[in-house]
Amino acid sequence: MKIQDLPTPSLIVDAPRVRANTAAMRTRIDGHGISLRPHAKTAKSVDVARLALGGEPGGLTVSTLAEADYFLGHGITDLVYAVCVVPSKLDAVQALMNRGADLKLITDNVEVGRAIAAHGAPFRVLVEIDSGEHRTGVAAADSALPEIAAAVAAGGSAARIDGGLTPAGHSYASRSAAEAADIAEAERAAAVLAAERLRTAGFATPIISVGSTPTATHARSLAGVTEARPGVYVFQDLFQAAIGSCGLDDIALSVLASVIGHNRERPALMLDAGGLALSKDRSTGALEGAGDCGFGLVCDLDGNPLDGMTVGNVHQEHGEVRLGDAAILERFPVGAKVRVLPNHACMTAAAYDRYHVTDGGGEITATWTRCNGW
Amino acid sequence: MKIQDLPTPSLIVDAPRVRANTAAMRTRIDGHGISLRPHAKTAKSVDVARLALGGEPGGLTVSTLAEADYFLGHGITDLVYAVCVVPSKLDAVQALMNRGADLKLITDNVEVGRAIAAHGAPFRVLVEIDSGEHRTGVAAADSALPEIAAAVAAGGSAARIDGGLTPAGHSYASRSAAEAADIAEAERAAAVLAAERLRTAGFATPIISVGSTPTATHARSLAGVTEARPGVYVFQDLFQAAIGSCGLDDIALSVLASVIGHNRERPALMLDAGGLALSKDRSTGALEGAGDCGFGLVCDLDGNPLDGMTVGNVHQEHGEVRLGDAAILERFPVGAKVRVLPNHACMTAAAYDRYHVTDGGGEITATWTRCNGW
Repeated sequence: MKIQDLPTPSLIVDAPRVRANTAAMRTRIDGHGISLRPHAKTAKSVDVARLALGGEPGGLTVSTLAEADYFLGHGITDLVYAVCVVPSKLDAVQALMNRGADLKLITDNVEVGRAIAAHGAPFRVLVEIDSGEHRTGVAAADSALPEIAAAVAAGGSAARIDGGLTPAGHSYASRSAAEAADIAEAERAAAVLAAERLRTAGFATPIISVGSTPTATHARSLAGVTEARPGVYVFQDLFQAAIGSCGLDDIALSVLASVIGHNRERPALMLDAGGLALSKDRSTGALEGAGDCGFGLVCDLDGNPLDGMTVGNVHQEHGEVRLGDAAILERFPVGAKVRVLPNHACMTAAAYDRYHVTDGGGEITATWTRCNGW
Repeated sequence: MKIQDLPTPSLIVDAPRVRANTAAMRTRIDGHGISLRPHAKTAKSVDVARLALGGEPGGLTVSTLAEADYFLGHGITDLVYAVCVVPSKLDAVQALMNRGADLKLITDNVEVGRAIAAHGAPFRVLVEIDSGEHRTGVAAADSALPEIAAAVAAGGSAARIDGGLTPAGHSYASRSAAEAADIAEAERAAAVLAAERLRTAGFATPIISVGSTPTATHARSLAGVTEARPGVYVFQDLFQAAIGSCGLDDIALSVLASVIGHNRERPALMLDAGGLALSKDRSTGALEGAGDCGFGLVCDLDGNPLDGMTVGNVHQEHGEVRLGDAAILERFPVGAKVRVLPNHACMTAAAYDRYHVTDGGGEITATWTRCNGW
């Protein structure tokens, strides 16, 4: 089947770009001498995960227990659930472990640490460290750090501390490679300090984990950490291109849409890709200058961006592409198809249950699954 | 099972509120002496549709062919697909008709009208009318109106014109009942004028359809139209409450979330409901004054709004609730559960494959299905 024969809206993945993005990240992280634990929250797909792991055995990061269940079902057992666990989820975690998952949890809270110890199952726990994002996690120098570890491992506990983990979501506020590299260094330093403090307190730290595509891409050194957890790099997106993580030509994800109407007064093209098909993510709107792509950047069927054509407004099933000149309407008759690059690949992909895969040309060569929900 | 025993995030529906919302709209539309064709795009659920139809046979509006397929599978055959069709979708429409769907299409384009006629199947078509939203549709006075109808019904065509349909999405810009009533009157007048022009041109108009929750709620008269297509009223949401379509107490949809962390510095509660679980819809952010609820309004487990507690920021799986006072953290220990009312019910519900239904108390009494995708 050819791309233009798919129903619309459909989610398209350019496999050569995924292979290139994943190979580049493997090379980069290999160069640091540490492990790559791709964050599966972007693609939520075993096919993409296998490319990200380069066909080797390896571990993944997940953002939901539904992802853990899905990847376990595909034989991937080494998993970090990188959202702070709560006691009510421990039974579900134990059930996954009983099925063979080597599932590591994270927490930043002494009370949760006590609940993990009291549960009785042999949970493996990383303390979440705040390296500057100030969302979740404890500061590396915080007295709570060894207290949380001690709560998890309190006398007789079957649970154990396996190290520390820090996200660097604030790297999304970087606007250059140099800024991302500076944040990466702060992230690394915090993780290393936390690990030292855990070891001083008597805990082993086989896993010292840092994250994020911008920091993994631009880090000058990852000395002292054991693994990196970038996620969105597998697909990249308009936001990552805008902040310097990639080029537009690296973006592997797009939404196939039909032109369903001409609005001659605005003038505008109407697409059948709206707020559900593209998501309502407006992250590029926070960028200064020309980086604002509305709800997505319109490309031709070959994936080439069309100058100045962005989805400026969305309704549930309608996307509106304002045009500078009504004459452009004639190039896109009703029924014509276009591809729309997403602001934020993780959000856009979540509306779909599968990927239609191209070899970079016009043919659909495979279908890849993904999991959704919780 | 009790609400607090559900995994988080989960989607909760308060059935008594759905019954009240749907009964009120039936009474209102019955009072106008016209038919109610609920827009199923909000709930995408046969259980909600049956309540909306009051247990009577009746028709629905759908926004995707996936919804048409789902409702047809549940025995509901009278359907309007209220997004402009494109020629590439006509085979799929015909397949649904062959399975028994009485599926009406809409178009605002002469070329599509010709393609519908040329296809050869007995399609039933409504011309989409622009009553002021200026998104899709032709103006009621536009010369294109009879041209589109003539294209559909051109000599020998098995397809036929069944009337006209207009959305009034611009009613979402109303800020009072009076403003919504004014837009409703403009919508009605445009639909009636278009119908007169179609009849003058020799076309029957058994269906003259108007839409939107604000206009269906506040219309002074719907004389001359045959049906109304409100959608979000089944659940209502924060945006509808803000513009006067309902009260906060009418909102039937909420997301159950766990407190997964305390951020003492901000201070803030962290929830496990983020951009995916709540959607990134920020429609209340466009409201002046105190109407901005961030990404959702936090309620206790009984559904009572907690003063001033909104989800101010989201990451993929994290929602951040800023607090004026760190002492409030003690009321919500890690592991506590809350319910979050959505800005836009249609967008939030789309992340889930089912509804957990309460009787208005603390028990989950049923599970309702929904369909997603395209």
